Amino acid sequence: MIVQKYRDMLGMKSVIREISGYATERGKEIGYENVFDYSLGNPSVPVPERFNKVIKELLDTREPIALHGYSPSHGLPEVREKIAAYLSGRFGLPYEMEDIFMTSGAAGSIAHAVRAVAEQGDEIITFAPYFPEYGPYIADTGAVLKVVPADTESFQINFEAFASMCNEKTAAVLINTPNNPSGIVYSTKTIEKLAEILKEKEEQFGHPIYIISDEPYREIVFEGVDAPCVSRIYDNTLMCYSFSKSLSIPGERIGYVAVNPNCRDAALIVDMCTQISRGIGHNCPSSLIQLAVAEMLEETSELSVYETNMNILYKELTALGFTCVKPGGTFYIFPKAPIEDAKKFCKDALKYDLCLVPSDTFGCPGYFRMAYCIQTEKVERSLEAIRKIARDYGM
Amino acid sequence: MIVQKYRDMLGMKSVIREISGYATERGKEIGYENVFDYSLGNPSVPVPERFNKVIKELLDTREPIALHGYSPSHGLPEVREKIAAYLSGRFGLPYEMEDIFMTSGAAGSIAHAVRAVAEQGDEIITFAPYFPEYGPYIADTGAVLKVVPADTESFQINFEAFASMCNEKTAAVLINTPNNPSGIVYSTKTIEKLAEILKEKEEQFGHPIYIISDEPYREIVFEGVDAPCVSRIYDNTLMCYSFSKSLSIPGERIGYVAVNPNCRDAALIVDMCTQISRGIGHNCPSSLIQLAVAEMLEETSELSVYETNMNILYKELTALGFTCVKPGGTFYIFPKAPIEDAKKFCKDALKYDLCLVPSDTFGCPGYFRMAYCIQTEKVERSLEAIRKIARDYGM
Repeated sequence: MIVQKYRDMLGMKSVIREISGYATERGKEIGYENVFDYSLGNPSVPVPERFNKVIKELLDTREPIALHGYSPSHGLPEVREKIAAYLSGRFGLPYEMEDIFMTSGAAGSIAHAVRAVAEQGDEIITFAPYFPEYGPYIADTGAVLKVVPADTESFQINFEAFASMCNEKTAAVLINTPNNPSGIVYSTKTIEKLAEILKEKEEQFGHPIYIISDEPYREIVFEGVDAPCVSRIYDNTLMCYSFSKSLSIPGERIGYVAVNPNCRDAALIVDMCTQISRGIGHNCPSSLIQLAVAEMLEETSELSVYETNMNILYKELTALGFTCVKPGGTFYIFPKAPIEDAKKFCKDALKYDLCLVPSDTFGCPGYFRMAYCIQTEKVERSLEAIRKIARDYGM
Repeated sequence: MIVQKYRDMLGMKSVIREISGYATERGKEIGYENVFDYSLGNPSVPVPERFNKVIKELLDTREPIALHGYSPSHGLPEVREKIAAYLSGRFGLPYEMEDIFMTSGAAGSIAHAVRAVAEQGDEIITFAPYFPEYGPYIADTGAVLKVVPADTESFQINFEAFASMCNEKTAAVLINTPNNPSGIVYSTKTIEKLAEILKEKEEQFGHPIYIISDEPYREIVFEGVDAPCVSRIYDNTLMCYSFSKSLSIPGERIGYVAVNPNCRDAALIVDMCTQISRGIGHNCPSSLIQLAVAEMLEETSELSVYETNMNILYKELTALGFTCVKPGGTFYIFPKAPIEDAKKFCKDALKYDLCLVPSDTFGCPGYFRMAYCIQTEKVERSLEAIRKIARDYGM
């Protein structure tokens, strides 16, 4: 009795994975350096050298049986304390250890957060364009994901559509800023407006509506961009963080949920996460990796390459006539395709070994995503291919 | 809208954790060396020295961005290949990479296995005494856990009760051998009989019934004990392994599901596990830790201490008149309490700073568990306390 729902999921291949797989195969034919692979959001900048040093130091100085020993379900107290102190210092909110729950990356973080506040029959609202994995994260809780159509002018929030979709079943709003795939950062004004509406709706419906704030790109914000801390603006916020992008260590699966200390049920939600873990077999990230990132809170990889790449692409794309909102962070850009059928456009681009991801699965058809977490030199070489496909489309 | 079911779970405190917490507190008063803490199944023997060396070698020789980079959802191919080769060599079954799915310890392993083969309305059967965390693992899938009463003569399987509980809703049988809490190892005869009944029931009901074989204690088997490989005897077996106990690294959260290559749907089940991961936010264990254990497959910690401890305790307990089946492995022993109310007995034992776990939550009341993963010297010092509580009970 193979469970059909998971079997069925296998049939729905991820478009991103498919294109990435094509890029790898094509690389075997013509050399991967000649494939302009903008498919995967896989960090390309080096891991900070100190990260490996910190791991070695832990191996050299800690008693192995303790170092590799069980962590409490919440995560290691010394790690949670350091993260709380760091967040307090940085965002001016009184985080304590009790507000922090360690997770296996952002995926684990969101999986716990949605289970803590939503169940069968509830609704969670997100905003297009959005990360397609939100679908399975939420489907598995029994809640329903509702998608607010994109505000394609600015990729901020379409508040009119949002206000009409928010109802008594709304348990949470899941936002991602800086955003994958648009690269846009929600402004202070946007978050304040969102908070204002949510507070009204909380009052109207008589129950809290949480913001689950997915923040893996928090450290990748470009010069001069207004990137507010969501938790500072809205009390009922569950911040979901991952070190994957800021330290270029996505394989180490490490992140946390930080519940806003001003959220009335903060410590209760964190305690509940330990119970959620029991059901989903999570039981903490690796102890060694927990301890290692706790020493790296003030540091990131050298992330400026992403802004360099963005500027090169943005300049070229707009010069060619692509409609494109300038990214404020991340390593994504999200131009409008020159025809309605973005899939066809992306397919055509492959003839120049240019691998783009059509936007349909992001809930915002007619666009394409470029993940420019690749070498700047390659971005520059790719411009000729971009020009060629633009020319084919009469741009 | 805090989700009530997780909130409720918080109210049901784990008895083991409660006693362990007591032991820690008492240790602060009288020195932890004077508390005979048999509560927690936390490995006490040293981590093999080579484990840290292997990690350092990986840090020194691999490109950091690849070493700490994304692992495919199945786990790293080179790791899965090594595990498949190891299992093939050891158990004589033709495992291939496609049969292996990397997980965060045994908890992650069982969480994936149960989701792959059971859903709402299905039943999973286990045998008392059993590890209480099976409850939440299975409840979260929507399936129902059915517990076959213990065969208290031998702690093998009560087949009569089992045969009558197995019905068309039975999706899987979850076994744990060597067993927590009894310490018993199921014999070849037991597994063969189980396989025989299951094959009959599969035929009768017209669908597969899987064995989910929880094997974290596989490497802790005592001299002369018949410890068969379940997968060799029954094709539809999902082996759930963890390195926590064999390498004393429970905090690193690393294990795997190995689907028997003779199971018709082996590769499909492994592929489905990747889809299950999407919903529960698992996405692989740490890449570094995956690569490290792949170099440690032929090694374990020096585990013989556990047998030494078992022999000391078994001798003393039986000499005092406790009814006790001799453990064949693990680091647990499971004697009968001298009164029906094991909770009272365990509470009384605390006056001698002897921390025992009453068996009620293991689905087999009237017994107590001792986790003798502690220093042998302390086991010896604890005998006087055991004698005292026995004397109080007129033994």
